[in-house]
Amino acid sequence: MYDYDRSNFIAFLKEFPSQIDEALQIVRGIQPQVEVDSISNVIITGMGGSAIAGDLILGYLHEDLKLPAIVNRNYHIPQFVNHNTLFIAVSYSGDTEETLSSVRAAVEKSARVIGISSGGELEKICRDHQLTHIKIPGGLPPRQALGYLFFPLLGIFENLGMIPGQTEQIEETRVLVRNLVSRYSPETSFGNNLANHIAQSIYHAIPVIYAGVPYLAPVTVRWRNQFNENSKAMAFSNLFPELNHNEIMGWEGLEGVNKHFRVIMLRDQEENPRIRQRIEITKDILRKKHILFGEIYSEGHSRLARLFSLIVTGDWASYYWAMLNEIDPIKIDSIDLLKQRLSEVRP
Amino acid sequence: MYDYDRSNFIAFLKEFPSQIDEALQIVRGIQPQVEVDSISNVIITGMGGSAIAGDLILGYLHEDLKLPAIVNRNYHIPQFVNHNTLFIAVSYSGDTEETLSSVRAAVEKSARVIGISSGGELEKICRDHQLTHIKIPGGLPPRQALGYLFFPLLGIFENLGMIPGQTEQIEETRVLVRNLVSRYSPETSFGNNLANHIAQSIYHAIPVIYAGVPYLAPVTVRWRNQFNENSKAMAFSNLFPELNHNEIMGWEGLEGVNKHFRVIMLRDQEENPRIRQRIEITKDILRKKHILFGEIYSEGHSRLARLFSLIVTGDWASYYWAMLNEIDPIKIDSIDLLKQRLSEVRP
Repeated sequence: MYDYDRSNFIAFLKEFPSQIDEALQIVRGIQPQVEVDSISNVIITGMGGSAIAGDLILGYLHEDLKLPAIVNRNYHIPQFVNHNTLFIAVSYSGDTEETLSSVRAAVEKSARVIGISSGGELEKICRDHQLTHIKIPGGLPPRQALGYLFFPLLGIFENLGMIPGQTEQIEETRVLVRNLVSRYSPETSFGNNLANHIAQSIYHAIPVIYAGVPYLAPVTVRWRNQFNENSKAMAFSNLFPELNHNEIMGWEGLEGVNKHFRVIMLRDQEENPRIRQRIEITKDILRKKHILFGEIYSEGHSRLARLFSLIVTGDWASYYWAMLNEIDPIKIDSIDLLKQRLSEVRP
Repeated sequence: MYDYDRSNFIAFLKEFPSQIDEALQIVRGIQPQVEVDSISNVIITGMGGSAIAGDLILGYLHEDLKLPAIVNRNYHIPQFVNHNTLFIAVSYSGDTEETLSSVRAAVEKSARVIGISSGGELEKICRDHQLTHIKIPGGLPPRQALGYLFFPLLGIFENLGMIPGQTEQIEETRVLVRNLVSRYSPETSFGNNLANHIAQSIYHAIPVIYAGVPYLAPVTVRWRNQFNENSKAMAFSNLFPELNHNEIMGWEGLEGVNKHFRVIMLRDQEENPRIRQRIEITKDILRKKHILFGEIYSEGHSRLARLFSLIVTGDWASYYWAMLNEIDPIKIDSIDLLKQRLSEVRP
């Protein structure tokens, strides 16, 4: 179904730093026609790789965005959407059917709609209704277009004055991502390739990714989804402290079943002391069951840099995992089949 | 750590219909001192079995509650909480440390706080600040106290006039739950015991529970958590249409790993036609991989009855699963260990 310019998946990974630079250029010109004072809540609507960009930005802005804000992953929209809702529709292709359905409903309710896409029907809807549309370059697998999706979202909030300036954080992130990509590239890494190491340790297992700070919740889902799509592998995720109230009991189960899992902890300097204690005790429990892979610490000073350090590590790990199983990370046969069959039964 | 009056887990399941009746008696007297007109958003804070009651009520009321509403599972609270927030703190024991921390933060921000607990520190906080507190009977494992937790939440919204009257739905639910409990009880079931059948089919596997209507999202999590705590087994869940954008690819993975999974679809009459098509195509894909367990349809006319029909089925399936593996469904050693060790390192 997709028609990519470049057939080599690793090119998408290597060009990610340039993608961020290009996205930042696009962002510079954004000035959405929205009166900030009238906004009382925010919805980002999208699916898959576009929705996760919404989760990532809302997690990242958690303390700065002083309004109720949610990501919507469905055909319909919440009842409370009205003319005081900032409604951002994200669809890389611009043709995701759930997103189009929800954005039409939001227009109907007079929400302040902004669209982000590489074109497609979403661009047309925005044009027809004179809504702000941010056009991003097409041609990538949506999951590898995260730079094009995330930074325009950040730019909307920054340019509307809803959050503090992000100049320094963005600069640190650009440098760190470029550094990491060089560290993870097969040609330039010097043995110490963490992404490859992760892949080696889990490529016959089922990874379960845990984190203990709210802004990393979407990163655990990003890892999971990259393992799903790029590595063709099941993966799961959960969060502290909630997992200490139920999922921790699942690890007491049958050894024959549980031996297939490997738990990866995404760690960060923002964990509060009590969460840190919970993680240590949980590690002890998992270690005794021989299912603890270990911990990956975020790198960098600013939260934005730390966020992207873990995203980049997961992306590369999913690539190396695909290589180990001799799988093409680009192909997504089941998703293509679904789209194909859904188009045949279009109601 | 817990000191239950009754050592036999099955008694909790059998007494669930009476628990609902008792909860409804408690609800009758609730008249929270909150001016509804001033409320602009709703937060339910809690963990584990208490948090899931919040998810279930918000899912159930999705179209009726015309305000942004979220469940908070952490020590802290969102930035947007203020005197216009209806903040409901749910903790069965009344001593859950995350919940106490968040409710103190909400009081600090002058939110309209209501507490639900069987006693504990939460009751004291409510008394000290002259806040509405709903006292429910103690002595159960929190996960088996769902009737005591859910119906007071429903009662708050109903008695405040924020949602339409629920009399008929509640009546149908009471009758259906009583009927189902009799159908699933080992002494009264006549071979056709669906809960036992589910357990027989998954007790050496890893169930993955899917649903396609938003109000069932928390039911998939409830099943998962009941399998974790009662059956001591890992379980996972996901939702249509989102899973069609990423997780579906995980099923293309290594047969040796994926053969351990069994996918259970929770089905419902409210699925929209497009979601129904997605589910059918997904079933075809999973069937070819030999990992489709099958479908469980909700029973009943009203949404409330259908919701509880699936909750009760999952609860009993988790019990039969524990029996098959000769496990005590009451014991939660890892959770007790966590609490023990956290109390030793109290900061």
